[in-house]
Amino acid sequence: MSRIAAHADLLAQLESRLGRAGLLTDEADLAPYATDWRRLFPGRPLAVARPADTAAVSAVLAACHAAGVGIVPQGGHTGLAGGATPDASGGQVVLSLGRMNAIRRVDPLGLTLEAEAGCILKVAQDAAEAQGRLLPVSLAAEGSAMLGGIIATNAGGINVLRYGMTRGLVLGLEVVLADGTVVDGLRALRKDNAGYDWKQLFIGSEGTLGIVTAAILRLVPRARHTATALLAVPDPAAALRLLEAAQDELGDTIQAFELIARDSLALVAEHAGLASPIGESDWTVLMEAGSSLPGLREAVETLLGEALERGDATDGVIAESGQQAGSLWALREHITEAEARAGKSVKHDVSVPIPAIPDFLAAAGKALATQAPGTRPNIFGHMGDGNIHYNVLIGPEHDPEAINRIVHDAVARFGGSISAEHGIGQYRVDELVRHRRPAEMALAHRIKDALDPQGLLNPGKVLRARV
Amino acid sequence: MSRIAAHADLLAQLESRLGRAGLLTDEADLAPYATDWRRLFPGRPLAVARPADTAAVSAVLAACHAAGVGIVPQGGHTGLAGGATPDASGGQVVLSLGRMNAIRRVDPLGLTLEAEAGCILKVAQDAAEAQGRLLPVSLAAEGSAMLGGIIATNAGGINVLRYGMTRGLVLGLEVVLADGTVVDGLRALRKDNAGYDWKQLFIGSEGTLGIVTAAILRLVPRARHTATALLAVPDPAAALRLLEAAQDELGDTIQAFELIARDSLALVAEHAGLASPIGESDWTVLMEAGSSLPGLREAVETLLGEALERGDATDGVIAESGQQAGSLWALREHITEAEARAGKSVKHDVSVPIPAIPDFLAAAGKALATQAPGTRPNIFGHMGDGNIHYNVLIGPEHDPEAINRIVHDAVARFGGSISAEHGIGQYRVDELVRHRRPAEMALAHRIKDALDPQGLLNPGKVLRARV
Repeated sequence: MSRIAAHADLLAQLESRLGRAGLLTDEADLAPYATDWRRLFPGRPLAVARPADTAAVSAVLAACHAAGVGIVPQGGHTGLAGGATPDASGGQVVLSLGRMNAIRRVDPLGLTLEAEAGCILKVAQDAAEAQGRLLPVSLAAEGSAMLGGIIATNAGGINVLRYGMTRGLVLGLEVVLADGTVVDGLRALRKDNAGYDWKQLFIGSEGTLGIVTAAILRLVPRARHTATALLAVPDPAAALRLLEAAQDELGDTIQAFELIARDSLALVAEHAGLASPIGESDWTVLMEAGSSLPGLREAVETLLGEALERGDATDGVIAESGQQAGSLWALREHITEAEARAGKSVKHDVSVPIPAIPDFLAAAGKALATQAPGTRPNIFGHMGDGNIHYNVLIGPEHDPEAINRIVHDAVARFGGSISAEHGIGQYRVDELVRHRRPAEMALAHRIKDALDPQGLLNPGKVLRARV
Repeated sequence: MSRIAAHADLLAQLESRLGRAGLLTDEADLAPYATDWRRLFPGRPLAVARPADTAAVSAVLAACHAAGVGIVPQGGHTGLAGGATPDASGGQVVLSLGRMNAIRRVDPLGLTLEAEAGCILKVAQDAAEAQGRLLPVSLAAEGSAMLGGIIATNAGGINVLRYGMTRGLVLGLEVVLADGTVVDGLRALRKDNAGYDWKQLFIGSEGTLGIVTAAILRLVPRARHTATALLAVPDPAAALRLLEAAQDELGDTIQAFELIARDSLALVAEHAGLASPIGESDWTVLMEAGSSLPGLREAVETLLGEALERGDATDGVIAESGQQAGSLWALREHITEAEARAGKSVKHDVSVPIPAIPDFLAAAGKALATQAPGTRPNIFGHMGDGNIHYNVLIGPEHDPEAINRIVHDAVARFGGSISAEHGIGQYRVDELVRHRRPAEMALAHRIKDALDPQGLLNPGKVLRARV
């Protein structure tokens, strides 16, 4: 019996509820939903359900629950850990939230934005900006990523240093549980200690505990003044001293503090044709601060002058215009693309306690040099929040999983995390088991069993599927 | 059989594990732990366990779990909802965390502080300040409240507007589960998306899901400049326009925006002998901003000048010194004490969406005037985050529960919360059931059942105890 025939009743039920536009079953229609954008995690859906509202999501989940069929939620499909693609069995239904894309309300005074899960992040950012406010989640995929996925993965990005992860921006949430129950917690409140804050369970659990259908997000005032600087620093320890001085001088106006290795800028020069305006150095820091008060540029100039004097920086430039700031950011933003053009690489998204960054970089570099000679690290990331994208360019002779283990073992030595912002998805499920304490894993399974006892929500993501 | 005799085995076991200093059973020794500081929630413990480390907490929980005896965790005992006092059965063990009070580490560069649950908030604040950093939780009880309770209740306070609730400051957590299992998540990471963020379950769940034994908290840079202003405003709508203008002018340097009613300042004048420097007005705003950049005072002066011109403020003063700022804050800080001296009152700790504050105040005032004539509202609170302490002075003819329902029904009409920061404890258990949707309550019970199936952790707090 074919997989379609085995689930004919379910598919008929879904089509009658969702209409023809709401259910895709033709092989050609399914293809875009079957694999991630990097084509690293290919799968095969039974069907793609495209509900238009929360009631329809509830109906899909209830029907799949009754049929014992797994559900794989999918938003903008921009994830890096294979968290939104079905397995190869052809027995899982992909639940695409893309049709639920309304922005319901922007409140510039209460500083909130309410939108549906399928709303694209950039669209939400623009809606906030039109009211003079800022939705402070900013990341490379913002033109495609959808709010549901941003919330389900607790997305990070460029401005975590100042504004925190997505979790801290979610004021209200609506979710649908495995059996189709809708739980409506769409409250636009900044303080709410009335009972368990159950929405925290769904933020960052990658669709394995429930489906996010709508949210109320916190907005912030927009900075009137921005200062962007690029600095050459001799080593990561100097970058760390610069960060400490910046905390003293600029306080929490610092909104980005990125560290970039020499080889990473060399890749950008070679493959994207962009050159740093301050020439070559072993390490480069890209820093940005923003404030509603004047005096920001002067404070950044003072900071830089003192860093040059101390020798913590050897050269530096402050952007004179928004366009110049854009050029500085372009260096950082083209690293991933340049890496892709340079050849095959193993990506890591790790974090360590901030003061441990120099020692971690030294330890990881040494481990790779001895255990995987010929690999080339491409090191860049959000130093201000301890998050380093420690990617490794490899040749055909290198085993990606071995590279993974080498880097993650270095992370573990410094009390770090094997996924700072990208999540676990299907990609890091085994590495998670290797690195988290058994009591933590047992607690995670207890939570999963309580909310999704049949294991139907995004099976095999974050946690190993139980047979 | 007496309650002691019924549990003789358990008590012997606890004493052998904790030593004589670690277990209190004499009636006189138990008294301070039996009721809250306001003596509104009297109870009677079987014994008080005072473990000195996490292993001992684990042993106490394991023993009580085996004996089927309830545990009531207690920190500084400063709560306002009866969340830390035992019931009157004499059958519950109070678990006092006060001996576990070490500050393990302050890291000024990584901006983290690690401490045990029994560490007093003020002590932790001072330790951060000694390193030039700020632990941004500030509340009236900070001289007694302990970090474990601060975390377990997701405490709010004065600076939520800028720094958020306690939840956003908890980077790492160690908890002990109902059966004594220790779960160690003491990671000093700002970004960590590796698996479920299980610590969120324990923050704000008031000791009903597990016992917090240690934490790593996030610190922030200290502001170099502070500006504190007191303003007379004609009505709450004008205060709201002032808040909006402040968001534009001052951005997120605003760290407090308090609204105080005329009658509240009158109570302070009468019972605490403190007078406002700007004379009487229907409503008063106390505002504070802080920044590392200069230019803050000028920005506040501009803001005030424009507000006076628009008529959104009718008078105002900016503190010229830290001492003057202290005097302005004293007006706010003496309201609760003045209220206590004025007679009997019913306290509320509610929040509504910020733009709804004027309408909520009007609706609540009208409802009280018609349904409970003779009551006098004492209205003050953190307007900047939508949290109003809408207290009501009552006479002997008024029924406190009826007053509760009148105020909470007004809150519900505006999509608000019946507990913004104080939590549910035992005080608001029934009101929670009345105000939260059934799907939310069912989800809460599902979480409770998964983590504490026997219902032994802080029974009857937050959720009704199941028989």
